[in-house]
Amino acid sequence: MKITDAKVFVCSPGRNFVTLKIYTDEGIYGIGDGTLNGREKSVVSYLEDYCIPCLLGRDPFQIEDIWHYFYKGAYWRRGPVTMSAVAAIDMALWDIKGKALKTPVYNLLGGKSRQGVMVYPHAYGETIEATIENVQKYVDEGYVAVRAQSGIPGLKSTYGVAKGKTYEPAQRGMPTEYEWSTEKYLNFTPKLFQKVRDAIGDDIHLLHDCHHRLTPIEAGRLGKELEPYHLFWLEDTTPAELQESFRLIRKHTTTPLAVGEVFNTVYDYTTLITEQLIDYIRMSILRGGGITSMQKVAALASIYQVRTGFHGASDLSPITMAAALHFNLAVNNFGIQEYMKHPAEANDVFPHAYAFEKGYMYPGDEPGLGVDFNEELAATYPYQRAYLPVNRKEDGTLFDW
Amino acid sequence: MKITDAKVFVCSPGRNFVTLKIYTDEGIYGIGDGTLNGREKSVVSYLEDYCIPCLLGRDPFQIEDIWHYFYKGAYWRRGPVTMSAVAAIDMALWDIKGKALKTPVYNLLGGKSRQGVMVYPHAYGETIEATIENVQKYVDEGYVAVRAQSGIPGLKSTYGVAKGKTYEPAQRGMPTEYEWSTEKYLNFTPKLFQKVRDAIGDDIHLLHDCHHRLTPIEAGRLGKELEPYHLFWLEDTTPAELQESFRLIRKHTTTPLAVGEVFNTVYDYTTLITEQLIDYIRMSILRGGGITSMQKVAALASIYQVRTGFHGASDLSPITMAAALHFNLAVNNFGIQEYMKHPAEANDVFPHAYAFEKGYMYPGDEPGLGVDFNEELAATYPYQRAYLPVNRKEDGTLFDW
Amino acid sequence: MKITDAKVFVCSPGRNFVTLKIYTDEGIYGIGDGTLNGREKSVVSYLEDYCIPCLLGRDPFQIEDIWHYFYKGAYWRRGPVTMSAVAAIDMALWDIKGKALKTPVYNLLGGKSRQGVMVYPHAYGETIEATIENVQKYVDEGYVAVRAQSGIPGLKSTYGVAKGKTYEPAQRGMPTEYEWSTEKYLNFTPKLFQKVRDAIGDDIHLLHDCHHRLTPIEAGRLGKELEPYHLFWLEDTTPAELQESFRLIRKHTTTPLAVGEVFNTVYDYTTLITEQLIDYIRMSILRGGGITSMQKVAALASIYQVRTGFHGASDLSPITMAAALHFNLAVNNFGIQEYMKHPAEANDVFPHAYAFEKGYMYPGDEPGLGVDFNEELAATYPYQRAYLPVNRKEDGTLFDW
Amino acid sequence: MKITDAKVFVCSPGRNFVTLKIYTDEGIYGIGDGTLNGREKSVVSYLEDYCIPCLLGRDPFQIEDIWHYFYKGAYWRRGPVTMSAVAAIDMALWDIKGKALKTPVYNLLGGKSRQGVMVYPHAYGETIEATIENVQKYVDEGYVAVRAQSGIPGLKSTYGVAKGKTYEPAQRGMPTEYEWSTEKYLNFTPKLFQKVRDAIGDDIHLLHDCHHRLTPIEAGRLGKELEPYHLFWLEDTTPAELQESFRLIRKHTTTPLAVGEVFNTVYDYTTLITEQLIDYIRMSILRGGGITSMQKVAALASIYQVRTGFHGASDLSPITMAAALHFNLAVNNFGIQEYMKHPAEANDVFPHAYAFEKGYMYPGDEPGLGVDFNEELAATYPYQRAYLPVNRKEDGTLFDW
Repeated sequence: MKITDAKVFVCSPGRNFVTLKIYTDEGIYGIGDGTLNGREKSVVSYLEDYCIPCLLGRDPFQIEDIWHYFYKGAYWRRGPVTMSAVAAIDMALWDIKGKALKTPVYNLLGGKSRQGVMVYPHAYGETIEATIENVQKYVDEGYVAVRAQSGIPGLKSTYGVAKGKTYEPAQRGMPTEYEWSTEKYLNFTPKLFQKVRDAIGDDIHLLHDCHHRLTPIEAGRLGKELEPYHLFWLEDTTPAELQESFRLIRKHTTTPLAVGEVFNTVYDYTTLITEQLIDYIRMSILRGGGITSMQKVAALASIYQVRTGFHGASDLSPITMAAALHFNLAVNNFGIQEYMKHPAEANDVFPHAYAFEKGYMYPGDEPGLGVDFNEELAATYPYQRAYLPVNRKEDGTLFDW
Repeated sequence: MKITDAKVFVCSPGRNFVTLKIYTDEGIYGIGDGTLNGREKSVVSYLEDYCIPCLLGRDPFQIEDIWHYFYKGAYWRRGPVTMSAVAAIDMALWDIKGKALKTPVYNLLGGKSRQGVMVYPHAYGETIEATIENVQKYVDEGYVAVRAQSGIPGLKSTYGVAKGKTYEPAQRGMPTEYEWSTEKYLNFTPKLFQKVRDAIGDDIHLLHDCHHRLTPIEAGRLGKELEPYHLFWLEDTTPAELQESFRLIRKHTTTPLAVGEVFNTVYDYTTLITEQLIDYIRMSILRGGGITSMQKVAALASIYQVRTGFHGASDLSPITMAAALHFNLAVNNFGIQEYMKHPAEANDVFPHAYAFEKGYMYPGDEPGLGVDFNEELAATYPYQRAYLPVNRKEDGTLFDW
Repeated sequence: MKITDAKVFVCSPGRNFVTLKIYTDEGIYGIGDGTLNGREKSVVSYLEDYCIPCLLGRDPFQIEDIWHYFYKGAYWRRGPVTMSAVAAIDMALWDIKGKALKTPVYNLLGGKSRQGVMVYPHAYGETIEATIENVQKYVDEGYVAVRAQSGIPGLKSTYGVAKGKTYEPAQRGMPTEYEWSTEKYLNFTPKLFQKVRDAIGDDIHLLHDCHHRLTPIEAGRLGKELEPYHLFWLEDTTPAELQESFRLIRKHTTTPLAVGEVFNTVYDYTTLITEQLIDYIRMSILRGGGITSMQKVAALASIYQVRTGFHGASDLSPITMAAALHFNLAVNNFGIQEYMKHPAEANDVFPHAYAFEKGYMYPGDEPGLGVDFNEELAATYPYQRAYLPVNRKEDGTLFDW
Repeated sequence: MKITDAKVFVCSPGRNFVTLKIYTDEGIYGIGDGTLNGREKSVVSYLEDYCIPCLLGRDPFQIEDIWHYFYKGAYWRRGPVTMSAVAAIDMALWDIKGKALKTPVYNLLGGKSRQGVMVYPHAYGETIEATIENVQKYVDEGYVAVRAQSGIPGLKSTYGVAKGKTYEPAQRGMPTEYEWSTEKYLNFTPKLFQKVRDAIGDDIHLLHDCHHRLTPIEAGRLGKELEPYHLFWLEDTTPAELQESFRLIRKHTTTPLAVGEVFNTVYDYTTLITEQLIDYIRMSILRGGGITSMQKVAALASIYQVRTGFHGASDLSPITMAAALHFNLAVNNFGIQEYMKHPAEANDVFPHAYAFEKGYMYPGDEPGLGVDFNEELAATYPYQRAYLPVNRKEDGTLFDW
């Protein structure tokens, strides 16, 4: 089999997506997700101007070789643009291989290791009461794990809390500027979880995302103060470019830690995993360079009792969601999967086999990834630039969003 | 002062360059280099589609704030595309500040710390004899430090050795595929330096680039076998995504080590520098996010007796060369600067104040960076895609180029 | 530009200050602070007898070179006298550069990164009630952060608590001898903060200074017992000549730690910062050798999420306060600034552009540091020796003050 | 016994010295050395303006209490000026105690542990041949250990090599500027020792001083290349503000290492000694705060098999030499003592009991330190400012002297 062509599509069915489609001489095509939220067209250029010419004529079954061709062959390794492009190629090749072998991708990854994939949605509210109500709503829908974020008294805006009906941080127009106070957040959050836990009991997994806004010692304090509420995880407590930061957090709390939706290679995890400083890998298949490289990350993690907990925000298209579900179904050290629903338009543009039922998701049994891409419909949703927000402290200091 | 506009120019005067020009309401403009060799248009998109809209209206003097706006504000941090874009912005802002304050940029960085900046060129040859001849030619031109690379018997192609008159690894058309044998290289290289040292004596600094092709233990062997020839440095011995790899090399040899032309943040250097595993920083101002972030890297390095030794290949435009010369003139812990001449056409497109004389370069004393950009002339050299090579072992394994 | 002369002035407008004035051939002069509380005239000699003769004829723009000339060129490096002298020179040179380039010093340091600089004053009382009253007074004046120290029952005198109207530890005459009991202090302090927090609520930042009087394990106990009151920081818990002492403290408490008003080079901080053992840098620009070296300290700190929290007692003259405000306005990793008001006479002798408003300070926008020195007025306040106190345990043992 | 007065004398019999004389109500006085080469008058001020008023009325036998009074009581600890002043006081108190008890100071330190104190002189020459001749001259005089330094071909000046008859680095007038090339030095030095060893045989201890001019890896190279010549020690290989730098050196060579003539407290040695990174302590009794604190340094060192090898240049007055000899005679872990002869005029001003004989020195058996101070004669040699040199690399970079 030979790759005969590849095309990149940018569309905006509710939000922006970058989709790569690789065609072969046997009529089989594969699709991959290359969406980099707020920087989409850089990946488009990376794929169109540089990768696609090098794909033509290659055997799509040689995924390992092609992965290294684009990782090592770029010379300038790593980074979100590069690795998103590599991931898009890699996902499409796995899709092709599954279709060619007429089997779902999970069978190429070891086969089913469980019946379904536990997922967690995003609950939020402007107040503690509204947040509890929203958590309860998800519990009523069958979820067994829920992420809870709440508006913080005295701050005009808070990460993870929608003003309107749906939470979607990327906004059209110029980047929104959020306001931040670590002290207000730290003083408030333990009270939030005390009340949430009181309201819903001990049987539901609760998760929370700090979104990189604490220093390690502040994270230690929060983790310790949250211990009575037994979180499933505390996520992205601190900016993690410096992995050893987690040594300090880990000394002070047994609250489980999840890290890395912004990571892009296994090297971002080496210290974190080999020193058992974290419990869950957040790096998604899209961000981490595809299924090929994520298999190695999961392998390393399995040795150190670290589990997968992949990022699953709406900026990861249904293709990445499908890839994650196949992956999660197969690996032994699966933990949980984030599940932030896509806009209805997106679900139409990306018809898929995967489905949700009673707190779990199932990739379905179609060959390949089990997702398709409706080019005609996509074309009716042209790309519109949208940015993720930035965040400033109350004195104007540019801070971590 | 306010930023009123910014434009990106892609041109190919001999080779490709990405140039950012930032305009202000006081008529002053600044220029920055955003060239990412073999992936140029991804940076163009990153700048045009995402960064420039956010620059408009800002005070160009607030460089620290703007730097963090694009570093933290991107959410997806690090990586060659991102950091090259940030660097282009940062260089242009320093250029503006220097022009507005009517002083060369080196005065904003601490003032002159030395008379001139020692540079080293690339000498090479298909054979040891040809390499020696080429080294001698540079010595005759006044250079006091020379990098030497030689063709390896039994290999069809070698990194750093031109087939034609000028060495320029990026090639138009599809990526060249090189052939590699670690054993042939390791057996040959000590002989090369024995003969070069015999021929030119002890007074000339000799440098050598392994171009990421050895494992740490192989690097230890080579470093040890090269000790009698007293290299100024041995560069990029091993792929450095895993910094602690250098602990092993450092145990076995006192040959000084330089690393990091492919790095892009200070976090790529934290273990390497704080454990004193290397001697020279190769990350260029362009790759490392600009002058603002490189000041912090150099500060860290100074505490641990690590010196600058910036990448200076021809894919870094004369703007980056100027920024490097201002920087190198000012910091106390300067080591050496690579100097691979630009094509004559590039020197015309980027008229500059800096100059070479007897082994040293001088940034000149014009306000700002002292480089300009001839848009009209640039327009006559349209962009042409060119790729860096890839490298395979003799059995076909995709390897580090 | 050339340095033509330099003079040192010692005056005592309310308290002693050492001021260096550097003159140039272009009529511009710069001023720097060399005050070493209780050892002022040693610095005067250091500057007059040794540094000034070496300054004459130098280009004041070559700050990096001059800094190293006095740091490395002294041979006998480090120490409070040496580094205060180097700092005085360095501040004066930055002042000259700002004036010569007609821009406030913050613009030479990266430009504004925030609107204003959060400061904290010293509240104290002989009793808990008096301390609470004093804290409340500062809150009423608009402060958002307050340091609280209280008299300890059973001890005749306590660090940080004035007998009269103003707190000023340096006293004319012979050194005062304080009395100390670690147990009385440790038993008392958690109660103090429980009551202060009860009285003023959660929204005000509270700080506390142990003034080097605890062993590491005692510091661990105190930090842990203070956790419920969420201090902004606990300062100088233990004598810090041995940096690794903080490893033990850090294992036991998440109370943030500030260290180093007595430090004088970055080497006093290397272990503390790279192992993330502290949260705030207390070393002032005066103690730490000036702006040039503090930029490197702040750079190191920024990599490890450590923030600035500069010493700002009244023995640092308004020149150091101005330098700190420019610096704090510019660096991204600013935390807080101590602000102990100068005597009215001192404010007259050092007319300055900086101002306080609602808990924040602003350096003003004058070229250079924005502080002047009234020589005639200064001459009316001749130097009078004053000493800092010493401290003894109840059995007479000489202890840390 | 009470201290009734204390005076500081500055004189220049051949070179500058600072001498402290402490008087008691029993007619006994003690003398101490406070000379800080090139910064003498700062120490004079430190003593006269601040320490002496606090000494009056104290019991001179309470040396431990007085030591802490000035160390902790200064608040601003450490540094060459502070610790030289503390050392002057401490030496004078030990001198008083010896005189009062009518016994030589060595008896107060444990008594004699050996017959005499092995010393080494400075041999040097512009050429290797001249250096060998000079070494041989010392051997002929009975020395069993000699330090050898030689002029380096191609450099105008070299550390340790006199132009005229006597080597004395401090020069009247402005600081001399030396020129430096690490490469020339590193290429030359192994050849020097090969020839010196060839000429004088294996029985004489050879020492060499790098004077802080190498990076750790360069020091590793030199140490390794000097191994065949079996040096007694290699001194001050690298600037040692960062103690962990010696880890790297220590990995590469078994050449014994001596460090610290510029150190001033035990905290400068903690990592170096507890990790056994060095073999000899160079910190002199004058620099390290006196006999009281040096006992503790020697105690720590003894635990880790590190020996004393005190600095003994001519800027340490005969008082410090006497103190060192008493100390060296008493401690078990004595190594060697540097002995750079004082000018004849200095020996007249400081009549002393100590004497040299056949490679060894003897403190004599007079009560106290066995040195006196001739005030009248001293007054005929008024202070004349002299500076130590500074050092620049060939490109003008300010470097370590």
